[in-house]
This record gives sequence, C-alpha cells and structure tokens, in this order.
Amino acid sequence: MKKINIGLFGFGCVGQGLYETLNNSKNFAGEIKKICIKNAEKSRSLPRRLFTIDKEEIIRDPEIDVIVELIDDANAALEIVTSSLKNGKSVVTANKKMVAENLEFLVKLQNETGKAILYEGAVCGSIPIIRTLEEYFGHEPLDEVKGIFNGSTNYILTKVFNENLDYDEALRQAQSLGFAESDPTLDVKGFDAKYKLSILLTHAFGIYVKPESIVNLGIDHLKNTDLEYAREKGFKVKLIAQARRIDDKVFAFVAPQFIGHNDSLSSIDNEFNAVSLTGDFCDEQLFIGKGAGSLPTGAAVLSDISALSYDYKYEYKKFYNLGQLPFSNESLLKVYVSFNSPQEIDLSDFESIHDKYFSFDHSYVVGNICISRLLEKKWLNNPNNNVVLCENSRQLQLGNLCVASLNTEIEDLKKGQVLLEKITV
Amino acid sequence: MKKINIGLFGFGCVGQGLYETLNNSKNFAGEIKKICIKNAEKSRSLPRRLFTIDKEEIIRDPEIDVIVELIDDANAALEIVTSSLKNGKSVVTANKKMVAENLEFLVKLQNETGKAILYEGAVCGSIPIIRTLEEYFGHEPLDEVKGIFNGSTNYILTKVFNENLDYDEALRQAQSLGFAESDPTLDVKGFDAKYKLSILLTHAFGIYVKPESIVNLGIDHLKNTDLEYAREKGFKVKLIAQARRIDDKVFAFVAPQFIGHNDSLSSIDNEFNAVSLTGDFCDEQLFIGKGAGSLPTGAAVLSDISALSYDYKYEYKKFYNLGQLPFSNESLLKVYVSFNSPQEIDLSDFESIHDKYFSFDHSYVVGNICISRLLEKKWLNNPNNNVVLCENSRQLQLGNLCVASLNTEIEDLKKGQVLLEKITV
Ligand SMILES: NC(=O)c1ccc[n+]([C@@H]2O[C@H](COP(=O)([O-])OP(=O)(O)OC[C@H]3O[C@@H](n4cnc5c(N)ncnc54)[C@H](OP(=O)(O)O)[C@@H]3O)[C@@H](O)[C@H]2O)c1
Ligand SMILES: NC(=O)c1ccc[n+]([C@@H]2O[C@H](COP(=O)([O-])OP(=O)(O)OC[C@H]3O[C@@H](n4cnc5c(N)ncnc54)[C@H](OP(=O)(O)O)[C@@H]3O)[C@@H](O)[C@H]2O)c1
Repeated sequence: MKKINIGLFGFGCVGQGLYETLNNSKNFAGEIKKICIKNAEKSRSLPRRLFTIDKEEIIRDPEIDVIVELIDDANAALEIVTSSLKNGKSVVTANKKMVAENLEFLVKLQNETGKAILYEGAVCGSIPIIRTLEEYFGHEPLDEVKGIFNGSTNYILTKVFNENLDYDEALRQAQSLGFAESDPTLDVKGFDAKYKLSILLTHAFGIYVKPESIVNLGIDHLKNTDLEYAREKGFKVKLIAQARRIDDKVFAFVAPQFIGHNDSLSSIDNEFNAVSLTGDFCDEQLFIGKGAGSLPTGAAVLSDISALSYDYKYEYKKFYNLGQLPFSNESLLKVYVSFNSPQEIDLSDFESIHDKYFSFDHSYVVGNICISRLLEKKWLNNPNNNVVLCENSRQLQLGNLCVASLNTEIEDLKKGQVLLEKITV
Repeated sequence: MKKINIGLFGFGCVGQGLYETLNNSKNFAGEIKKICIKNAEKSRSLPRRLFTIDKEEIIRDPEIDVIVELIDDANAALEIVTSSLKNGKSVVTANKKMVAENLEFLVKLQNETGKAILYEGAVCGSIPIIRTLEEYFGHEPLDEVKGIFNGSTNYILTKVFNENLDYDEALRQAQSLGFAESDPTLDVKGFDAKYKLSILLTHAFGIYVKPESIVNLGIDHLKNTDLEYAREKGFKVKLIAQARRIDDKVFAFVAPQFIGHNDSLSSIDNEFNAVSLTGDFCDEQLFIGKGAGSLPTGAAVLSDISALSYDYKYEYKKFYNLGQLPFSNESLLKVYVSFNSPQEIDLSDFESIHDKYFSFDHSYVVGNICISRLLEKKWLNNPNNNVVLCENSRQLQLGNLCVASLNTEIEDLKKGQVLLEKITV
C-alpha cells in the first residue's frame, strides 16, 4: 500500500484525535506532513516545524496527497476545500455546517474536478452511516431516517435527566469533555443535528435541502417544570432528528421529543448517538455509537482517508434512483408547548388543541401544529416558551423502538374534523 | 453502469428474496439469467426456461458475470464456489457453514484467481457487519465482538419468554416464517451462530478459527425450570456469540446467557440480530437489524452483487495489522448448570463452585468452568443438563449495554484462591 501524505487543517479536538488514532493504528500507511492552524503563537504538543499558518503551503505542496479539513470555521473551510479540489487533491472533512450548506455545490465540484470529498466524521462521529446509506441502501427505497444526532445535547439531557444536574453545569461538562461545538448554541438549539440531517437527506432520499428550510427546535428552553411533566408521564426527553418519506414527499425536522422508557432511543445516553433507518427490504436498522469526541471522530476521519487510498467516492446513488422527491413542511406535528403567559404564544398557529393546563408555575397546551408554522419561529424564540414533540403511538417492530409523530398531512386533516380552540384565561 | 448478468444457485427462501429485492430495486442494473436448482419437478413461480439442474450451464456461460450461491448444502456449495472462482467468476454467497469451514482456503483461492467472494448475507442478514469491520475497523484494534447472531433462536426465545409459547410451537413458527435453517439443529444448538462468529473472527481479529474449535451451547436443553429461574432473577435468556481479545489472545464461544432487562441486547426481540463492537478509538458500537428472512437476506446479497460491479473485494486487513493472535479456550466462564441428577454431570470439571441448589423439580450449580472443558462436551450432550452463562457485572458505558463474563484467565485464577467443592447428595 502506497504511503499517503496528509495535509491537515486544524489541530483542535478532532485534529489531535486524528493524530492519535493515526499513531496508534495498525498498519496504516499514512503520515501528517504539515498542519495549518490559525494562531501561530499557541503552544503545541508537536514540533513547531510541522505547523504553518499559510494554507497555500499545504494546498500547493505536490507531495501532499490528501487534505484533511478539521477547523471550526465553516466559511474558511469552504475556501480550503474548494481550492484543494480545484488543485487536484481529494478532501476529508468533519465540518457538517460547511457540507450541509454547500452540498449541491460540492457534488458539482467533485464531478468537475474528478476528486472526492468524504465526510463520514461530520455525521454522528464513529457511526458509519453515510457509507452504509451509499453501499447498503443505495438500491433500497427508504422510508425513514431518524435518531439522536448530537452527542453534546444528549450528554446534557442525560446528566439533567438521570443525575439531576443543573443545565449549565451539564453544558460546561460537555464542553470540557470536547463533545460540544466551539459555539454551543449550534448544539443546544439543534443546528448541529440539523446540518447532519440535511446531509443525510441527500444520501437517504437523493434531495438537497438547505438547512434553513428545516425546522430545528433546541433544548435551551427546557424548564424544570417540563422535566417534571416528562418524569410524571414516564418519559425522557431526547433531541431527535427525523426525516420521513410519505407518499413520495419527504418531511424532516429536529426537535426535542418525549419518548417512553421502552423506546430504543431512550437508553442511548451520554455522548452516544443513534441512527435508525427503515427500508422496504431490511425493515428497521439501528446503529449506535459515539457521536462525538476526539478519538471516535478521529477514527471516522481516518477511515475516510483510508478509503481515499483506493479511490473511493460517494456515488450519491439516490439521486439517480428516486427521481426528485419534493421536500415539504406541510405536515402536522403533535406538540406540547409550555409557556409563562398565553399572551406570549399565538394559539391561532395551531390546527387543533387537545389539552390545556394552567397553574401557578406550569402552563401548557398540547395540540397539532404545522411544521411550516414552526419554521417561522415567531413566538418560539421567546425563551419562556418551550416546544416538545409528543410521543407517538405508532410502534415499529424493532424491539421497543417507537417511531414518532408525523401525522397525516395537513390537507387530509383539514378535510376531517379539526378542533381549533381559542384559550382565554 | 454496465448491466450485470447473474447466475443463481438455489431458489428457496433467500433466492426468492433476492429475486424480489432485485425486481423492486431502484436503478439496479442487473438481471438473473439462469437459476440452478436441485429438483427439476418442483413447481416454480417463474418461467421454466429460467431453470436448470445442470450447474455447468451457469458456470460455463461466458455471458454470466457473477455467481450467486444460495443453496442449503454446504458441500455442494463449496464445489460451486470453487469452480466458479476458478472459471474467473466472482461469487456472492450467504452460506455461513461453507464459508466458516473453508475460509482459509477461500481466501487463498481469491488470491490465486484474482476473483472475489463476498458473503455479507451469511452473517446477520441485513446488518452490514463484514464491510463495516473491513472499512471502518480495518486499522483500529478491536477488543470485543459479540451479539445475537441467530434470528431463529432469538425468535423462539422471544416467543417462549415474552408470550409463554411452547418451545416446539415457537420453533414451528420460526420455520414457517423462513427464519430457521432447513436443518433446525443448526440453529438451536448454536452452530449457525458459531459459523458467523468464526467468520467474524477473521474480519475482526485476523485469525482463522475452525468452527470445531469453538464451543457452541444451544437452547435445546432449556427447561421450564430454567426459564422460571431466569424470570425470578429478573433475567431473560438470549443466545449470545462472543469473541474477545485479552492480552493479545482471542477467546470465543456461543452460549445461552442470562441478561438483565436493562442490557441493550435484552430488547432485541424476534428475528432481529445485534452485533456489538468495541474498539480502542470508537469505544462501543451496536448494530441492530433483521438477521434472517427472505427480503433482509436478499437485500444483503443484492448489496454484495452491487459491490462487485465496482470490483470490491474484502482486503482482510486484520491479517496484516495484528500479527497472528493466538486463539485460546483456556479461560474460565461462570455458568449455571441445571440437571436432573448430580450423577449425570461431572463436577470435577469445574474450577470452583459458588452455589448449589437441590429441590424436587429443579437442581443446579453455579460455578466457574474452563471453556476447553465445555468443548469436550461429555455430560453436556445429555439433554437433562442445561448450561446458561451467568450475567456479568462488568458494565460498559454504552447506555445499559452490559458485556458478559470472560473472567480472568485460568492461569491467573489458579494462582489465586480456588474453591473446588465436591457435591454429594
Ligand atoms: N469535537 C467533536 O467531537 C466533533 C465531532 C464531529 C465533527 N466535528 C467537527 O470537526 C471540526 C473541528 O472541530 P474541533 O472540535 O476539533 O474544533 P476546535 O477544537 O475548536 O479546533 C479548531 C481548530 O481549527 C483551527 N482553525 C480555526 N480557523 C482556522 C483557519 N482559518 N485556518 C486554519 N486553522 C484554523 C484552530 O486553530 P488554533 O489551534 O490556532 O486555534 C484549531 O486548531 C468542526 O467542523 C466540527 O464541527 C467535531
Ligand atoms: N433463510 C434465511 O433467513 C437465511 C439467512 C441468511 C443466510 N441463509 C443461507 O442461505 C442459504 C439458502 O438458504 P434458504 O433458507 O434459502 O434455503 P432453502 O429455502 O432450503 O432453499 C434451498 C435451495 O437450494 C436448492 N439446492 C439445494 N441443493 C442444491 C444443489 N446441489 N444444486 C442446486 N440447487 C440446490 C434447493 O433446490 P430445490 O428448490 O430444487 O429444492 C432450493 O431451491 C443457506 O446457505 C442458508 O444458510 C439463509
């Protein structure tokens, strides 16, 4: 096997993880030749001569075979990746934001340059989900992709739920353990999970959906009363990303969700991620693994580098075999919304309301709302208001795995009986 | 993409499943050109001209690109596969017995002929475990591979445990649903799981271990009193296959095992399989999916055919990066053994005995026994005696996944305090 010379961008949590996995790998014929970082003054664990702040030194080095991009700046990353591919170098990246926001462009660029960009590490760390979708589900029509895609929020929810830890303390822990993004709002507001979902929409359903078209509700508005409500009903709260094909339309969203204790996703704790796929032939498949952290992500990056050594490329098979499925936000979700004051939410946004509860310290409604209304945000930005998806009763066959809540499409429901109540207190 | 002409052997459960997945696949450029079966008289769902009983008609057809071997006879299968490879045709098979018993030979034959044999469908149906081991864990030292590898026994145990169904009735159901092997003793005595474990030992640890060197204890001696004992203690019984690297020796066995309700494997029910991997970088990964049945296995076979279209081959990376790890049966397992009469088991086979219980209708001992003693069978063949592995207390971090019972090696234990009791009633 020919030795691969690697040009690395970024030497933070994942970059150092890659270095360590490379060094402890068995029989991997590759070496990091140069590392580009941002801050020339920072002290490093490796000899100074390995580092540079000049990206051209790497991109223009004819001896470097592969560029590995592991920086925390999506715009700078896009520049690096673009000029690497144009310079005839294939790329491995773990930057989900950059990939999700530019995937259509990046696929074109791969076709034009003949070079590859692989990004397994960008989606659920060590879980080999993109290649599984490409290789195993390439010819199989898929019905659903869902799961826990963000290790940092899952860590926080685990600590908050199982150990009664304070939300801020749990976030601090996640950050110090290297699970959290440099900007934690990306995690706790559901953006990180949404970027991953957006990437998987391409590999699972053959469509490009820009992140801004996908609803992401986070866990940062969760209040103690919401947690108590969940506990009382025997639920946990997990941040779930979900995409589903119904009548050849695709729906997708990220939201916290009540799930029962016998739901498979309920036992996925700490920084673990899980991805569930449902296909026409295979039925459900569930993949569980560490979704974040230095070594698991480093190992995923390493397996991509290894795949480049035999010229592996994503084929984006679903583009060619599903036709252009339309993406839609016109479906109802059953949600629980807690609030301080009913004036602060607009109940006319709901299609129907099933429950309402008011008390001194905890008020909420449960009702159906269209995904597109959630996308507009409006009163959802108010931190007093918290939305959690309701557990759905549709049980899949896989053990206790339970798939939640894409109700009948809004059009169907409108034909039926719709109960829209105005609440006046 | 060039169209692939497929020559198929066998048109039973999996063969027909392959036909159906092929027909309902999106954009798969392949076609079954000819099918070789055993019984020319049997009525078939496809036109008679597609069938033959002459294997040479397929193997010697220059227009056939790929041989797919899906018969239920391991010896005949080995002949088919051997002469196909020698005739310059790559092969896909789902025959775990044939592959497990001949893997060293088959790897040589691939090297000699330059052709590939892929067998993802042979190991846990639709779970892409072999390619994941090859592609994702190729460079990562693994510590453990374990799981539920047999759909048929898992179906039986689920029905017996969760629905109080009679053992024989549950077996009949498994057979009629197509999960069971044509010869059900392969399933219930743990041979099928052992063949899969033997194959995974090659891909996970780079060693060839003949099936006859691996202990397989089945579920066919399970008595109602054993089930009651398990229920009382809050356990389920699952048939677990397990391989583990300890101090650079590899241990492996198949045995029924008591597992707690909060163990991840405990919720894997019906014909679902699960494979858990533990690696140095990724920590635990768990893969869950349908391990048997017509369509899931057909889909796995189809993805192998698809991989051949871009000349994919297993690289057997672990051969080259782990050195020759020795396989050993010299380790203690903590087991529960129930019996009718203590005269029927040889207690001197135990290294130590922790519990003994005698009553009119249920007698058992719990103690440590060396794997190699279990391999000799002796009193284990007596259907009155039933062995179940004890739950182990070592908890891994993955949710509630709990990894059982490879105790310290026998040598270490002999150095320490060994309590060997003779029971006399
Ligand atoms: N952390 C995880 O568990 C995880 C998991 C999956 C994916 N990811 C993704 O992996 C990427 C890296 O994450 P991280 O956690 O390793 O980040 P990090 O610890 O914050 O490290 C970022 C690194 O990028 C360097 N950098 C920033 N801007 C640069 C520029 N313009 N040119 C060159 N170097 C630059 C920084 O240089 P200095 O050292 O000089 O500051 C630093 O070494 C992100 O895209 C993230 O989304 C992370
Ligand atoms: N069933 C599952 O869920 C499953 C899952 C994974 C792997 N597998 C493996 O897949 C293989 C097939 O299993 P199956 O369940 O499909 O078996 P099956 O339903 O019993 O079908 C066996 C087929 O093989 C044909 N056959 C037997 N001997 C032959 C020979 N010498 N030459 C040509 N054809 C011959 C039979 O022909 P006739 O039709 O003329 O009798 C029949 O069509 C086995 O190796 C099994 O271990 C099965």
